[in-house]
Amino acid sequence: MNLRLDIAYDGAPFHGFARQPDVPTVQGTLEDALGKLFGGPVATVGAGRTDAGVHALGQVVSVADAPADLDPVKVRDSLNGMLAPSIAVAVCAPAAADFHARFSARSRTYVYAILEGDVPEPFLAPTTLYHPEPLDLGVMNEAAGHLAGPHDFSSFGRVPPEQSAERVVYELSVRRSGSILRIKARANAFIQQMVRSLVGTLMVVGEGRRAPDEMPAIIEARDRAAAGPVAPPHGLCLVSVEYDEAWSRPLGRLRE
Amino acid sequence: MNLRLDIAYDGAPFHGFARQPDVPTVQGTLEDALGKLFGGPVATVGAGRTDAGVHALGQVVSVADAPADLDPVKVRDSLNGMLAPSIAVAVCAPAAADFHARFSARSRTYVYAILEGDVPEPFLAPTTLYHPEPLDLGVMNEAAGHLAGPHDFSSFGRVPPEQSAERVVYELSVRRSGSILRIKARANAFIQQMVRSLVGTLMVVGEGRRAPDEMPAIIEARDRAAAGPVAPPHGLCLVSVEYDEAWSRPLGRLRE
Repeated sequence: MNLRLDIAYDGAPFHGFARQPDVPTVQGTLEDALGKLFGGPVATVGAGRTDAGVHALGQVVSVADAPADLDPVKVRDSLNGMLAPSIAVAVCAPAAADFHARFSARSRTYVYAILEGDVPEPFLAPTTLYHPEPLDLGVMNEAAGHLAGPHDFSSFGRVPPEQSAERVVYELSVRRSGSILRIKARANAFIQQMVRSLVGTLMVVGEGRRAPDEMPAIIEARDRAAAGPVAPPHGLCLVSVEYDEAWSRPLGRLRE
Repeated sequence: MNLRLDIAYDGAPFHGFARQPDVPTVQGTLEDALGKLFGGPVATVGAGRTDAGVHALGQVVSVADAPADLDPVKVRDSLNGMLAPSIAVAVCAPAAADFHARFSARSRTYVYAILEGDVPEPFLAPTTLYHPEPLDLGVMNEAAGHLAGPHDFSSFGRVPPEQSAERVVYELSVRRSGSILRIKARANAFIQQMVRSLVGTLMVVGEGRRAPDEMPAIIEARDRAAAGPVAPPHGLCLVSVEYDEAWSRPLGRLRE
């Protein structure tokens, strides 16, 4: 059967989501655990290839060839026993036969968290970037307005040669809640390091070192040197992946 | 001058608060950093000797012989630069000459956090005990009522030979907020492992394996075998230390 997993993970111990030889990755760790449960090699597809150190609350994974007779709740509980504490499977459920975690996704939503204030906070340190000086939210949102939309984002990340860097950013916004500033980015897809590069650029604007109206020229440059720095990974989290209504929810705990 | 530090720390990397030779401790790490700032050995006093792996949000430390000409805010910022991310100094301020973090304290408040539910949570894993099965709050609070008050707590912790295990528990209560259950314990002082032993005993009651009315006999036994197990340290946090009004607040950022 086709299985959908909704997972959360602490990115710190992993070299990113995508499986690589010889280093711990989220996908590799998950596939190894599924392999033990299913008794053979298992291939998974993830909706977002999060970079090393980036966290997830709502990553979605599909497993095309899961055994037909499995009990999804037992699989979830067994995986949680094997993967704790760094990875948690929130939902494990049969999915429609044509559901594909990556290709069926309409958009991905990331949130970058920044802690402001005179004093750092040990319990927020793993998931927020500490930035003592307050950032100017107004100019950051003005700059975000320029960066949202369909653009060639070559200035903001890496793409393999010959591939397009065209993406559509549906939402890029900054809000403050207490001493935490959150930058939300939703796009049809992101090129590598794009969210962190957008965040780094918005931070430079928030610090008053660049102006919002410089953004169009940065996009036009199609040159990574034109943008701000890449913000560190630990402030970033893939919070959700959006699907069409038909796929918006797992089929529940029924067997397919 | 006499200096007061209000500090928070992630207990995971430390062998407890109290300085020990050859292992990382909160007090040792803090004293080493102060020693670098002040140019010589520094002795500190902490309000609570948290065990290995136990966290703090509101630990209070006094430093009796700090240089008279220091700028407390600069000391705070320098310490935070040296101690991040595991320890944070929230407040550094001159204190009255007779303020003593330990002997001036009237009570200590600890909170133990337990995450219930079908699914663990990676970002809560460092600070909450995961317990999938729901606990029975009613019987836990009934048992807590028996355990509160002035008692000889020999059944719930260690005291050095010849010393009294008499303590006064002013509050012991359990409440649920969403999927997190919090056990709050406030006492004039705690003997070693006492909070975690009270928590372990309340959990056994919440699981239905002991009855609330067994608590008086457990206290009477003055025998650690009579109580429940010692709950793991990572769910526990020293949230605040209470002082008399005169000492309830640092003197502010003014130099003494």
